[in-house]
Amino acid sequence: MRRIITLLTDFGTEDSYVSAMKGVIISINPDTTIIDISHQIPPQDIMAGALILSQAAPFFPKGTIHIAVVDPDVGGKRKPILIETDRYFFVGPDNGIFSIVLQREKIKQKIHLTNKDYFLRHISSTFHGRDIFSPIAAYLSLGIEPAVLGKKIKEIKELEFKKPYAKNGRIIGQIIHIDRFGNLITNIDEGLLKRVFKNKAFEIKIGGNIIKRLIPSYSYAKKDEIITLIGSSGLLEIAKRDADARQELGAEKGDRVEVRLRDTAF
Amino acid sequence: MRRIITLLTDFGTEDSYVSAMKGVIISINPDTTIIDISHQIPPQDIMAGALILSQAAPFFPKGTIHIAVVDPDVGGKRKPILIETDRYFFVGPDNGIFSIVLQREKIKQKIHLTNKDYFLRHISSTFHGRDIFSPIAAYLSLGIEPAVLGKKIKEIKELEFKKPYAKNGRIIGQIIHIDRFGNLITNIDEGLLKRVFKNKAFEIKIGGNIIKRLIPSYSYAKKDEIITLIGSSGLLEIAKRDADARQELGAEKGDRVEVRLRDTAF
Amino acid sequence: MRRIITLLTDFGTEDSYVSAMKGVIISINPDTTIIDISHQIPPQDIMAGALILSQAAPFFPKGTIHIAVVDPDVGGKRKPILIETDRYFFVGPDNGIFSIVLQREKIKQKIHLTNKDYFLRHISSTFHGRDIFSPIAAYLSLGIEPAVLGKKIKEIKELEFKKPYAKNGRIIGQIIHIDRFGNLITNIDEGLLKRVFKNKAFEIKIGGNIIKRLIPSYSYAKKDEIITLIGSSGLLEIAKRDADARQELGAEKGDRVEVRLRDTAF
Repeated sequence: MRRIITLLTDFGTEDSYVSAMKGVIISINPDTTIIDISHQIPPQDIMAGALILSQAAPFFPKGTIHIAVVDPDVGGKRKPILIETDRYFFVGPDNGIFSIVLQREKIKQKIHLTNKDYFLRHISSTFHGRDIFSPIAAYLSLGIEPAVLGKKIKEIKELEFKKPYAKNGRIIGQIIHIDRFGNLITNIDEGLLKRVFKNKAFEIKIGGNIIKRLIPSYSYAKKDEIITLIGSSGLLEIAKRDADARQELGAEKGDRVEVRLRDTAF
Repeated sequence: MRRIITLLTDFGTEDSYVSAMKGVIISINPDTTIIDISHQIPPQDIMAGALILSQAAPFFPKGTIHIAVVDPDVGGKRKPILIETDRYFFVGPDNGIFSIVLQREKIKQKIHLTNKDYFLRHISSTFHGRDIFSPIAAYLSLGIEPAVLGKKIKEIKELEFKKPYAKNGRIIGQIIHIDRFGNLITNIDEGLLKRVFKNKAFEIKIGGNIIKRLIPSYSYAKKDEIITLIGSSGLLEIAKRDADARQELGAEKGDRVEVRLRDTAF
Repeated sequence: MRRIITLLTDFGTEDSYVSAMKGVIISINPDTTIIDISHQIPPQDIMAGALILSQAAPFFPKGTIHIAVVDPDVGGKRKPILIETDRYFFVGPDNGIFSIVLQREKIKQKIHLTNKDYFLRHISSTFHGRDIFSPIAAYLSLGIEPAVLGKKIKEIKELEFKKPYAKNGRIIGQIIHIDRFGNLITNIDEGLLKRVFKNKAFEIKIGGNIIKRLIPSYSYAKKDEIITLIGSSGLLEIAKRDADARQELGAEKGDRVEVRLRDTAF
């Protein structure tokens, strides 16, 4: 069953880009089901695309074909690629956009897409989403074998991003995403917190603010209280009840976050 | 036929939330058709969600399953519920979000969703849209009986919202929604207007402005004219031809609207 | 095969308008596949709608039914129409919105939609997208013959828009669209450039800026360089590598663009 194709891009939905991709797909395989992951990735922000993809992709059924196009080097030297894992197919540019999602997948093969028989006949140099990735995904959904579509390769590009680290009993991480509600999502996951702090109480320092309340969900917070919780992706989040933590704390993506035992002296 | 599932949330489309819900649904029932009502409900605005749902839901076929998640108390004490009417299934939090749409439906049963066999295995405390409401809707679409999914309850929460009222031959209402075009939608419906004013001409007072022109559609307005009309939901609207009535009148949601006989002295 | 229906509107996705249309369609034909082209057309901007439609529609398979609703005169004198070409059906208001897309189609017939048996029973005067165009498209997808739906007409409205022109070895055009990335899209196509300049180098003047670099794709640009290229629709675009050309040049839709031989003296 390879009937489902997801799309993640930074194309927005104001323009014709996304629908042209869907038209191409459905022209090749009218029986596919196309589901949007997001088209609101900030323009050219590969890291944000990689993160959103990694949060959504694992909820799709085995056989799903995920297209991801955040592609500032379109038409340049970066390769168009296909990665087959034990559960999914990933189709897009070789620029690191699959780095995060692949951490939890078992890779079967990596293909450099070179077989132009499976591209659109006219390839523009600015829109491979439509001209290469969409037809490739549609042919995959028809059952074409990945090996037919290009050449096996060994290496693909990895995103370089700062991982959180523990030092002197503290964890240093950063804000990697801010969602629509203004919740600040860090790169610090539940496992790391448990490893460093066991069951002891900790506190979080961000900018000049110290937050002591770790709660199970938003509804446990008092009105206007700044709290932290483990979000739906298993990552430490900083939030404000019924309000916008970004505004309240003046926080931005990339801001340093420090977690330490509660009431640690400085 | 229970193949259609609609989604209404305040999650936006920038993040992975909505697509994770769709992945869960399609993993359980690949043959479902998922249709977005809106994901742009202002964050945590249950009233806006209830209104938009009530405008869209009635146009869907019998058997449609409507999921609505505007859920500031997720993880708290509010119940996850399912309401079966003679036409539809409604799935979401028990916080009043179904109050408006249910005014026109005939309720058959109300279920408190408690059977964890039909939830995702791991339930986060912040994302019941993905972990509870999506799988419940997907199982419903497969034909599972509502009674299997939880316990019958008698009461569900009602939204408290101001209804318009007539007094001394006037109607006092308010702006309950402002659409993308800047049209101001009031809570005063055509039926109430007919009851109070019969076929007599009336005028509308909002802020310091008095609007006398009630017209059948936008195209009857002169350029730059502020007019009122009965909109596509049967509610009194205030609009400006080819322009934005909100900006022109400095109006906001919640603003008082008074309707009275034309040229009434004050 | 008439199973695919596309939607283009200026309704946005905050409100219930688009989903009400989908509910109407799917109530009449549950087996249709509905694909959004865009709902973010600037309110009442028929030209922008016509352009986006012309960019997306040609990628859809034969038999696709395209609904386009940017309709400031809804409820007025403009006709609801259906145009059948050798590949597609177009359904919407007769206000020029199909002018651009039809330049590349072979028209078979034009129908004034008058047969109310195929409208919703209650026709509001403000929402023909839901009450007329959606049911018409759904019945078409069921195989109803166009001639049944109304009366043949000869003329439909044409959009008046400025075509680029060549004069004294120069091309004078304008910015007709600015996309999400801030790329400026002109109305000057590759064919006209080749006709006027053959293979000679040219330069572009916009406002006080002169741009000399025509490159095959974004990735050929140096960081922060303003460049021009032929975009994915075959039109001359002005862009800035990894940045927003609109902001950089202070450009707006409608701005004059002049193309001339490189290093022409003024």
